[in-house]
Amino acid sequence: MAVYTEVDDADLLRFVAEYDIGDVLSCKGIAEGVENSNFLLTTSTGPYILTLYEKRVRPDDLPFFLNLMDHLATRGVPSPRPVAARDGTRLRHLSGRPAAIVSFLAGMWVRKPMPEHCTQVGRALADLHQAGADFEMVRKNDLSIGGWRPLLVKSAARADIVRPGLLDELNREVDALEAAWPNDLETGVIHADLFPDNVFFREGRLSGIIDFYFACTDMFAYDLAVCLNAWCFETDRSFNITKANRLLAGYRQVRDIPRDEMANLPVLARGSALRFLLTRLFDWLNTPENAFVTPKDPLEYLEKLRFHRSVTGPEAYGLL
Amino acid sequence: MAVYTEVDDADLLRFVAEYDIGDVLSCKGIAEGVENSNFLLTTSTGPYILTLYEKRVRPDDLPFFLNLMDHLATRGVPSPRPVAARDGTRLRHLSGRPAAIVSFLAGMWVRKPMPEHCTQVGRALADLHQAGADFEMVRKNDLSIGGWRPLLVKSAARADIVRPGLLDELNREVDALEAAWPNDLETGVIHADLFPDNVFFREGRLSGIIDFYFACTDMFAYDLAVCLNAWCFETDRSFNITKANRLLAGYRQVRDIPRDEMANLPVLARGSALRFLLTRLFDWLNTPENAFVTPKDPLEYLEKLRFHRSVTGPEAYGLL
Repeated sequence: MAVYTEVDDADLLRFVAEYDIGDVLSCKGIAEGVENSNFLLTTSTGPYILTLYEKRVRPDDLPFFLNLMDHLATRGVPSPRPVAARDGTRLRHLSGRPAAIVSFLAGMWVRKPMPEHCTQVGRALADLHQAGADFEMVRKNDLSIGGWRPLLVKSAARADIVRPGLLDELNREVDALEAAWPNDLETGVIHADLFPDNVFFREGRLSGIIDFYFACTDMFAYDLAVCLNAWCFETDRSFNITKANRLLAGYRQVRDIPRDEMANLPVLARGSALRFLLTRLFDWLNTPENAFVTPKDPLEYLEKLRFHRSVTGPEAYGLL
Repeated sequence: MAVYTEVDDADLLRFVAEYDIGDVLSCKGIAEGVENSNFLLTTSTGPYILTLYEKRVRPDDLPFFLNLMDHLATRGVPSPRPVAARDGTRLRHLSGRPAAIVSFLAGMWVRKPMPEHCTQVGRALADLHQAGADFEMVRKNDLSIGGWRPLLVKSAARADIVRPGLLDELNREVDALEAAWPNDLETGVIHADLFPDNVFFREGRLSGIIDFYFACTDMFAYDLAVCLNAWCFETDRSFNITKANRLLAGYRQVRDIPRDEMANLPVLARGSALRFLLTRLFDWLNTPENAFVTPKDPLEYLEKLRFHRSVTGPEAYGLL
């Protein structure tokens, strides 16, 4: 739940006047999203999303994100398309923040994903990977293997407040993953945060993928591993192998999953679980009590991590 | 900033299917508003506002509010019009809450009101008072003279935490207002909460009045007194007599302000300032530290209260 920056109505009118998108009818802060300030901007030509980038997004990364969205939208991925102002720029400034207007995508995210949603997500993820093949910019994944130890260090002193023994377990996990992490799998543009609230469906069909602000250049199979964690556990934290099967099968309809990627899925899924565990742990320990955002439970990802540590091979995900 | 209740996408589709408003395209929680959960619902027939009523609104009061909005909209006041479901009902249930869909009003609220905005607000307030003349339902104003002492009692034990001596000053204020409160002024439907964030403007023209959830039956002049407090103080808390003059003059273009109402404006403005002071004081002392809503400073209204106590007659508001 997040609108961090209030936009003055007069400033907004001046800002929108730089675009060929008609007159402003309304602009309402959206309560979803935790990283940036998002507004549903309605003009005489229709609805748009206005985003003000807050401090967790590095301004230097914004051209990567905006160009990527444009690149993907042009290639048929249902991603928001940044709107250029009359002078051709898409990254501008409003209320002291970097800001952009992007196209509005119809649809709603599903609170209770079913196996059929997982099929479509798998397919869309492979579409995204293929559509990104000729995208020329590169952005390192700061929240992958090289970033975990420094991130854990930041929470080390208080990690055991959340659960006794947690620091030890996570240190051992980082050790194990550093030893086992693959380095020869195919890489390209990945979304890296494709959770259910970033995927819209309309009348049962996938209609939008949003929030490219963790997108980066990394292993395709890591993106699959993120989706296994995001889509295939039930609210009681049990793993649903049917959903995993559908996710992978959907993906395979578009792009093959080579043997080496399949074989590495368990370790990649452990790594992805650790990534969300570590960022949630940090937020849990560092969110001011009066913050607008309720931090998410890091221990949910400890259970997911342990599940993936327990699996003996990729057949645990329902597909060989 | 508020969305208290999360709405399941499947529940929402079932809910909207009961209306003749087309298919759902999207539904996004709005970050503004502090009493209820509001969503911008977009369907194939256009935008709507979906409101889920949270616990601070008494369910028994909802027919008054919804009927009033319908009554006013029919008479040309730019208020949201409740949309009836196919079975004719406008007050329904969603996610365990009373819920209603109302029409969407274009426009934005002004962060820095100018005298011209005050003229239009005055005129619209008088329009509202006249349009409500034949509205048959009655709702007592719980937050007027009879409600202040019980409200102060709830905060009494800790009031002086906010400012030493506050309890004493407020007790004396309630005494003084109980002695001086008028009881023979003209009454009718009033908005009772017409702050700048409840009034939309589009291209400089007043285009919408929202948030009727404090509307009640009370003195018309009390509504003017609320507006004096809400529109005519600067952010440095100084009183802008030009804005007050315009507000009253705009009102008078539509409805006369009789002598007895003018004479009572100072005491009504004190009462109105006390009303917001007391509710803010209660919220200040009772908002959990991790709440989504940042409580507003009660002392802003202590300064306004003292200003009105210092005036010697209605000429302080720029009009005789």
